[in-house]
Amino acid sequence: MTAIGIFDSGFGGLTVMRAIQELLPNEDCIYFGDTARLPYGNKSPEMIRRFCLENTAFLLNQNIKLLVIACNTACAWAFEEIQKICTVPVVGVIKPVMKSVVELDNIKNVAILGTRATIASKIHEKILQNYLPNVSFVSIACPLFVPLIEEGYIDHPLTRMVMHEYLRPLKEKEMDTILLACTHYPLIEKDLRRELGSQIRLIDPAKSCAEEVRHCLLENQLLKESGDGLHQFFVTDDPEKFRFFGAKFLDRKIDIVSEII
Amino acid sequence: MTAIGIFDSGFGGLTVMRAIQELLPNEDCIYFGDTARLPYGNKSPEMIRRFCLENTAFLLNQNIKLLVIACNTACAWAFEEIQKICTVPVVGVIKPVMKSVVELDNIKNVAILGTRATIASKIHEKILQNYLPNVSFVSIACPLFVPLIEEGYIDHPLTRMVMHEYLRPLKEKEMDTILLACTHYPLIEKDLRRELGSQIRLIDPAKSCAEEVRHCLLENQLLKESGDGLHQFFVTDDPEKFRFFGAKFLDRKIDIVSEII
Repeated sequence: MTAIGIFDSGFGGLTVMRAIQELLPNEDCIYFGDTARLPYGNKSPEMIRRFCLENTAFLLNQNIKLLVIACNTACAWAFEEIQKICTVPVVGVIKPVMKSVVELDNIKNVAILGTRATIASKIHEKILQNYLPNVSFVSIACPLFVPLIEEGYIDHPLTRMVMHEYLRPLKEKEMDTILLACTHYPLIEKDLRRELGSQIRLIDPAKSCAEEVRHCLLENQLLKESGDGLHQFFVTDDPEKFRFFGAKFLDRKIDIVSEII
Repeated sequence: MTAIGIFDSGFGGLTVMRAIQELLPNEDCIYFGDTARLPYGNKSPEMIRRFCLENTAFLLNQNIKLLVIACNTACAWAFEEIQKICTVPVVGVIKPVMKSVVELDNIKNVAILGTRATIASKIHEKILQNYLPNVSFVSIACPLFVPLIEEGYIDHPLTRMVMHEYLRPLKEKEMDTILLACTHYPLIEKDLRRELGSQIRLIDPAKSCAEEVRHCLLENQLLKESGDGLHQFFVTDDPEKFRFFGAKFLDRKIDIVSEII
């Protein structure tokens, strides 16, 4: 058991993989993107669970030492079920970032942006309201952000138009903190800052997820402390597209992507 | 063998089913929507073919008398493969409408709008250029139209903003004819007319497909000429969402939707 297994419906989880690689450059990673069945954010909770259990089974077969669910929709609806079948520690993108949000100073008005399925789960709001009873929360489903990002409309007028429409309710309140509750959204951080003002605090869960991975590896004496990290990529459709677009999410070149059937 | 089998990646094919029901009210229909794996328009040709062959096998098992591929992306990439495995006649949404376009009067500038995969196939342009060498064609991939429609943004400012951006190249030429090369697009006909002017000729392939179905049934002595048509619906995910949204596409209530696994 040597590698960290990471899965997402498609490309979004690569922003989490990037954070893991930055913090833990020695670690080997196996990334799995379910590109044949993406997106997950508009599918039913039952289907999301089924897909996630299949993805987990694939990664467990690769003999991973830790599993990262690098997708908020998957964490919102399938975290417990995945943990039940997992023989290795599991880290998601929701709980680790909750800790960081709870520790923030000057937090009054928080917006949570996510897919339709993530927002419908209300999971972020439920957890945060418990710890931050005096903070006001607004949750907004932004179902078009994922297709926009996957189509490459980054730093693009179309994305800003859609964003302007979605984030209209935020204009009425003085928002201080925006939680990016979808691993795709860090790609449109620039557009978000332009829409909401540069002083806004954008919380990307990737960093806290990477820290939780480190903590979990240390605790289980699984940390790899030397050698270059080896990175493998598996997808269920169109490895060439993944290789090309994935580089934007990972912020570095991807050499080989294998298609699994 | 009694029913017509119809499949699509999701909801779009219901616009074709509606046309079939209007023309052939006595016919029984079995509709299959692959809602767990939608959309198809941004998947690879190989994956589109695989999905389509699976959908076809499901419908053949229902003992259908004729198969309708109610999806342009599927027809563009999988028509021949489907026909090879089919023991019943197959009707798509591309060839029938080509005949209608070729017979049009005053046709000079035609735009073809479709998904990324459909436009990449260049199938409409290749066929039409053969018959209409003096007509000019512009093909535009509109990958966000399907998510917009599936999210219910019909007759909505967001859809019109995206449309305005996509159809910008059409403003330079005097377009006379727009081919809706995606079975979802008839749902945004109003928005298209508002953007392109009410005098524009919009071609919805559903009607010619229905006429081809009728012709094919007659030729094979399979036409059902009496009795009410029975309609069954199968989806691979979220039957409740399909029942609700499907009614908009079909323009009438849907009672029962079964989920298949």
